[in-house]
Amino acid sequence: MKIVLDAMGSDTHPAPDVEGAVQAARAYGVTVILIGDENRIKSELAKHDINGLDLPIVHAPTAIAMTEHVEAVKEKKDASMNVGMRLVKDKQADAFVTAGNTGAAMAAAIVGPHALGRIKGIKRPALTTILPTATGRVLLLDIGANADVKPEYLYQFAVMGAIYAEKGMGIVNPRVALLSNGEEEGKGPMVVRDAFALLKKSRLNFVGNAEGRDIPQGNADVIVCDGYVGNVVIKLTEALAKTLVGFIKDEITKRPLAVVGAALAKPAFDALRVRLDPSEVGGSILLGVEGVVVIGHGRSNANAIKNALRVAKEAVAGNVLDLIRSGLQTN
Amino acid sequence: MKIVLDAMGSDTHPAPDVEGAVQAARAYGVTVILIGDENRIKSELAKHDINGLDLPIVHAPTAIAMTEHVEAVKEKKDASMNVGMRLVKDKQADAFVTAGNTGAAMAAAIVGPHALGRIKGIKRPALTTILPTATGRVLLLDIGANADVKPEYLYQFAVMGAIYAEKGMGIVNPRVALLSNGEEEGKGPMVVRDAFALLKKSRLNFVGNAEGRDIPQGNADVIVCDGYVGNVVIKLTEALAKTLVGFIKDEITKRPLAVVGAALAKPAFDALRVRLDPSEVGGSILLGVEGVVVIGHGRSNANAIKNALRVAKEAVAGNVLDLIRSGLQTN
Repeated sequence: MKIVLDAMGSDTHPAPDVEGAVQAARAYGVTVILIGDENRIKSELAKHDINGLDLPIVHAPTAIAMTEHVEAVKEKKDASMNVGMRLVKDKQADAFVTAGNTGAAMAAAIVGPHALGRIKGIKRPALTTILPTATGRVLLLDIGANADVKPEYLYQFAVMGAIYAEKGMGIVNPRVALLSNGEEEGKGPMVVRDAFALLKKSRLNFVGNAEGRDIPQGNADVIVCDGYVGNVVIKLTEALAKTLVGFIKDEITKRPLAVVGAALAKPAFDALRVRLDPSEVGGSILLGVEGVVVIGHGRSNANAIKNALRVAKEAVAGNVLDLIRSGLQTN
Repeated sequence: MKIVLDAMGSDTHPAPDVEGAVQAARAYGVTVILIGDENRIKSELAKHDINGLDLPIVHAPTAIAMTEHVEAVKEKKDASMNVGMRLVKDKQADAFVTAGNTGAAMAAAIVGPHALGRIKGIKRPALTTILPTATGRVLLLDIGANADVKPEYLYQFAVMGAIYAEKGMGIVNPRVALLSNGEEEGKGPMVVRDAFALLKKSRLNFVGNAEGRDIPQGNADVIVCDGYVGNVVIKLTEALAKTLVGFIKDEITKRPLAVVGAALAKPAFDALRVRLDPSEVGGSILLGVEGVVVIGHGRSNANAIKNALRVAKEAVAGNVLDLIRSGLQTN
C-alpha cells in the first residue's frame, strides 16, 4: 500500500511529518511517499534509521501555509497538497495525508487543479472527526465541509459515516443518530426533520435524534449534522475541556497542601490528557471523494502523523471507498 | 413589584418553589404571587416564617407536567402556567417565573390561551441562557425557541440580547458576536452570513463571528445563534462538564493514596460545582414577548427559584421591555 504524505503540513514541518512517516512505514509496513521540499525532507530523513523502509520523495516546490486563504490551492498548482492529490488521482498512491491547512486540504481534494472528484452519486463530501466519549468514541460528521446542507446530504453523510465506522473503526452495526434539539421525531430545524424521514426509511441502524448531551455520553456511534453545528461542537468541546481542566488545576494548586494535592492529582490529569489527546486519533477522514484523504491537526507531532497514516491505511484496507459506492444503493 | 411564580413548576414542587418565593420576597422586597394548588401552597407556606412578606396565592386547579407535550398548554386552560400568564397579560403582575416544562412555558407565553404576544416589531421571541466562561459569563440566545431562523431574527436576537446584557446583567457596552464556523466575515451558513451584514450596519458593539471555542473562553458577552445550535451548545456543555469531572474524580480515587488525593481535590471540585451551578443563574429569560418571563431548570432548588425571581426582578427594574421596544428603532 502506498500512502502520500504532505511533508510540509504540520506547523513545524517537515520534522514531525518525516518522523511520523518513518514510524508508520516501520509499524504498518506501508510505503509513505513524502511530498515537499526535497532537500529539507532528505536532511530530516538522514536523522532516522530508515533501513528497509520504503520512503520515496516527490519534490514539490511550494506549499500552502496555515494562514493562507483556500484560494491558494488554485494559485499554487505545484504546492505539496496539489502534487499529493495528483498522485492519488493518477492511481500512483492509495491515500493522501496532510496535517496542513484544513480548508486548503478540502479544497485541494474537491476543487483543486488535481481534485479527486466526488464518488459517483455523492452530492457533497463531508469531513469527519472522532471524539472520545464516556464509553468509547463517536464519529461526528460533517465538521466543516458544508455550512449549509440539504436533507439528502445528511442522509448521505449517515451512509458514509456508518460504513466508515464499521470498516475503518471496527464498530459492528454502528448506531447512527441525527444531531437535533430534542429526542423525539419532529424536533429540529426543517432540514433535520426531513433527513429524519429519509433515515427512518433506510437500512442503517438509525437510532433517531441525538442531543448535544449524547455526544460526550456516547449514546451513538455516528452522529450526523451540518458542518456549521459540527464545527461549533468540536471547537466548543476542545476549549471547554481545556477551560475546565485549567480551572480544576488552578483550584488545586491555590489551596493548602497544594504541592501534595497537585502531585496526587497529576496522574489523573495525565490520564485525561491521553484520553483527549488528538494525536492518538491522528486525523479526520474526508468522506465522499474519489480517494482516501486524511487531514490531521496542524499541531501534530510525529505520533499524530503516524496515527493519521494509520487512519489512511485502515480506510484503504477496509475498502471504504468501494463500500460507499455500493452503500448508496443498498441503504 | 409583583412577580408571579408558578408554584407547580419544579420537579419536586411545590416545596422548593414556595421556599424560594419566601427567600426572594424577603431578600428583594418584592411581592411573589404563588399560583397553583391552594391547599398545597398553604401547607408549604406554613413551614416558613412569612411575617411581613407579601405572598398572595392564586389557585390554579391543574398544572402541566414535565413529561407533557406542549399541546397541553392549549388543552389545560386553567393550568398554573396559563393562569400566571393571564395575570401578567392583565397587568396584575410585572413578571412570570416558572421552573416547569420549558417548551410548555414558551408555548404558554407565545401561543397559549393567555399568550402575552410579541413586542411590536419583534419577529420571533428567543430563549436565553447565561453560561460561565473562563473570565466571566456569556449570554447565549436563542437556545430553543426557533430551530429555523432568518437573518432578521438573528439581528433582532442580537439587539434584545445586548439590551438585556446591559440592563439585566449589568454589562456595559456588551460585545455582541454571531456564532459561526470561522472567525472571518463570510464564514458560516448563508443565514449567518446575511445576519453578519445586518449586524455590521447596526449600532451594536458587534465584534464579528464567534467560534465554538469563544463560548467558554469568554471572548464575547452576547453570542447569537439559532435555537438548534444553541440547544446543542447548552446540552453539550452540561454533559461534557459532567463527563470530564467524573473522569478526573474516578482517576483520582482509583490511584494510590486515593483517600488523601480525593480529600485534597475535593475543595477544587466544590469550587467548580459552585461555578457551574445552574441554581446561581436561576433562570433563562424569554426575550421578545410582552412581559418578563423567566424559565428555570426543572431540578431547581429553593436557591435556584430565589435567583430566578431575582432575574425577573432585575429585568423589570432595568426596564428591559421598554428598551427593546425603542432599541429596534435605534440599532
